[in-house]
Amino acid sequence: MSGQADDHMSAEQFRAHGKQLVDWIADYLAGIESHPVRAPVRPGDIRARLPESAPEHGESWDRIQADVDRVIMPGITHWQHPSFFAYFPANASGPAILGELLSAGLGAQGMLWETGPACTELESVVVDWLAELLGLPATWRTDGPGGGVIQDSASSAALVALVAALRRAGRVDADRTACTVYVSAQTHSSMAKAARIAGITTPNLRTVDVDPDTLAMRPDHLEELVAADVAAGSVPTMVCATIGTTSTTAIDPVGALGEVCSRHGVWLHVDAAYAGVAAVCPELRWINDGAAEYADSYVTDPHKWLLTNFDCSVLWVADRGPLVDALSILPEYLRNPATASGEVIDYRDWQVPLGRRFRALKLWMVMRWYGATSLREHIRTGVALADELAGWFREHEDFALLEHHPFGLVCFRPLWPALSHRDAETATAALLARLNDSGDLYLSHTNIGGRTTLRIAIGAPATTREHVRVAFRRIEQEYLALREEQAA
Amino acid sequence: MSGQADDHMSAEQFRAHGKQLVDWIADYLAGIESHPVRAPVRPGDIRARLPESAPEHGESWDRIQADVDRVIMPGITHWQHPSFFAYFPANASGPAILGELLSAGLGAQGMLWETGPACTELESVVVDWLAELLGLPATWRTDGPGGGVIQDSASSAALVALVAALRRAGRVDADRTACTVYVSAQTHSSMAKAARIAGITTPNLRTVDVDPDTLAMRPDHLEELVAADVAAGSVPTMVCATIGTTSTTAIDPVGALGEVCSRHGVWLHVDAAYAGVAAVCPELRWINDGAAEYADSYVTDPHKWLLTNFDCSVLWVADRGPLVDALSILPEYLRNPATASGEVIDYRDWQVPLGRRFRALKLWMVMRWYGATSLREHIRTGVALADELAGWFREHEDFALLEHHPFGLVCFRPLWPALSHRDAETATAALLARLNDSGDLYLSHTNIGGRTTLRIAIGAPATTREHVRVAFRRIEQEYLALREEQAA
Repeated sequence: MSGQADDHMSAEQFRAHGKQLVDWIADYLAGIESHPVRAPVRPGDIRARLPESAPEHGESWDRIQADVDRVIMPGITHWQHPSFFAYFPANASGPAILGELLSAGLGAQGMLWETGPACTELESVVVDWLAELLGLPATWRTDGPGGGVIQDSASSAALVALVAALRRAGRVDADRTACTVYVSAQTHSSMAKAARIAGITTPNLRTVDVDPDTLAMRPDHLEELVAADVAAGSVPTMVCATIGTTSTTAIDPVGALGEVCSRHGVWLHVDAAYAGVAAVCPELRWINDGAAEYADSYVTDPHKWLLTNFDCSVLWVADRGPLVDALSILPEYLRNPATASGEVIDYRDWQVPLGRRFRALKLWMVMRWYGATSLREHIRTGVALADELAGWFREHEDFALLEHHPFGLVCFRPLWPALSHRDAETATAALLARLNDSGDLYLSHTNIGGRTTLRIAIGAPATTREHVRVAFRRIEQEYLALREEQAA
Repeated sequence: MSGQADDHMSAEQFRAHGKQLVDWIADYLAGIESHPVRAPVRPGDIRARLPESAPEHGESWDRIQADVDRVIMPGITHWQHPSFFAYFPANASGPAILGELLSAGLGAQGMLWETGPACTELESVVVDWLAELLGLPATWRTDGPGGGVIQDSASSAALVALVAALRRAGRVDADRTACTVYVSAQTHSSMAKAARIAGITTPNLRTVDVDPDTLAMRPDHLEELVAADVAAGSVPTMVCATIGTTSTTAIDPVGALGEVCSRHGVWLHVDAAYAGVAAVCPELRWINDGAAEYADSYVTDPHKWLLTNFDCSVLWVADRGPLVDALSILPEYLRNPATASGEVIDYRDWQVPLGRRFRALKLWMVMRWYGATSLREHIRTGVALADELAGWFREHEDFALLEHHPFGLVCFRPLWPALSHRDAETATAALLARLNDSGDLYLSHTNIGGRTTLRIAIGAPATTREHVRVAFRRIEQEYLALREEQAA
């Protein structure tokens, strides 16, 4: 049927090809361990397999599907592979994939309540459900003064939170050169990017010291910086505290930082992108200490560790006024009775883009398929595996372990007792490259106190104790082999 | 299998439930006309059908799927309905839905080349293909000095283009209070939103006059404003020209505006969100006159009229330097050999978010399934139907037609000869409400020269001549009925 003018895929064709693709995905997920974790390709390899131009005439689904295997798959790094331990997990799950499929099949637009009542109201409901599951304040619910919204990422959430903070500081439509934002060297780079986009200059992005052991932001230094800025006539606008930093899952003391913010009227944004969802487990609720009392905005990503396909980053604000005021512009062509009534949420006013997919479906399906019990079990599995892995490193004389591992991330480094600092750095980088080049597992790295440190982030739904055990053994073997080579 | 601890959906369950859902979507698309176009619900109706809290225990797929029908569907406004004529189309198509499904099934992350080589390279290839199909300059290809990238929306594209413009003007890390941005009253509100986010103050968002007949931006007035700003020490930073405004698909004279920009060193951003894709048809390439010579950035949305599910907005820049310089921040945990080599594109540096879905798949599948020939046919069908509809309004004594309708949008208003201006406005609003409340079709409105004007945007793949004919008759009938009621 393809190759003809105005050649839309019929419902019957969609039925057939859709089922082919569902089978393909089921086979892929069942056989994912047959692939190297990281794509073994070099720059340009995939491009070289593709024609220079789009086809003039349509092609059959079978040809397209065959090219997925031939052209695309060699260039896929398998984030759902059970031996993917790099960065942070980007969980996918059956119910979330089906939620994305339904969203695409409906092809609805949720920019306004009017254009997608179910898009809007289901989103409000699922973010309220999630707030409750995480033990976050009831006042953050969308039926209170605050409210939650699904963003594409914690980066975008940081940006809109910053714009809301600027609004509260009276600087949305004003000179921002006096505005200051406070981060630590451990804060995610997205906050610096948001500040840059919003016109906060680099000198005004203040770096608060961290405790050298915990890598947590020091409230006394924040107080010092803010007080000096106030005295100098600056406008302290936002502090970004992190619960679970990207480098090491360090936890800033939100309550003590919040106390400083509260005293000086500074907006407190809490970036719990990776770790926040862990609070589905009551025994991990302590990570949010201080957030309920002090956070003006709080973000966590179900698309990292809570089984919901990217993109699904949930941002809550304690008061939605400044956010909506800052981001709302209403041209004639978007006016409608529901908006005018003030009875509805128009989520376009909570984000940078105007249009929006029906992303709430996937989070709804995940929460219903798993239920709170199984979501907790998923988090607990990751924490327990990380704990066990940490134990193996702790007991091993050739590795140094970072003792802080409350979540699924374990940081360690080989000791290379015979090598200078510089040679040890090179050797650690070589170890990482050798492991990742093998295709058997995939780790990433960070730098702690001037030393390259390896990160193993556990959390893919497919990862079992055996995968972690095999990874540990493999790291040990490659380390010993490299050490032997260097001694030779 | 649900309701148990750590209860992931197995590959076999996914196979079964995925096929159920594919059947459901095929049935939905085949029977879409059985639904009212606009959801007949009131604020709170959908929320009221949902429980207060997430379930404690997992539920079966059958229960979830049943609730899609029971809870969600009544609140869906059917953007893919053939009688959806509101706003602009948000095309979905079989191949694009399958592209979204595959993207979700792979669960890959394309933030860096390293984390998704195929994500990155397929994206570069498909945006290059599209540039060629639209007759855009070869220098905008990703293998030239420029490059293309998929953004979630033209709003986000406007924001990153503005940040690139600020970079080129030396104002990314500097005081922006002198920076000025130029729009017209017809420019999409997303540009004002981008300016607000980036710290351009309202007085510095200059409104260039439009020609009262064409509603196109006046180059002479732009020249006047820019020259005055330069003389006053301001920093003219960006002009946003539009090809196909949201209100009426007006076309700004890009070449003449670009000449002004070029003389004063101002960044020219071209917003062709809706209409740009029409240039797949050679006979419509004229709409881009001047863009090749003068545009620094150009955006068009395959997710509107080119059969590719939202989100898929393609932004090209003539020089990628300022964009990447402005948005790149490289923390240790994202460093990798491929990035360090400079041989690859890391698309995180082309956008606000860090993470990104594999959106190129859906655009690739659309271009391959349809081929250039059928993409052209799709656009031509919309243009021809709009032309025919415009003819019916032109010949009808009770309606005034806006004679400008080069794309799929037709703007008209009832004349209400017996009514005062104010009563006519009320009557037009009543007509719109009555039509939309019927559920049989869905239009939206704008305001032209102080008069409420109705918009019929044709472009859904399912829309045929018969749907347009029925819509016209229905509008005529409701108009006559309302007129009779008012006379009574």
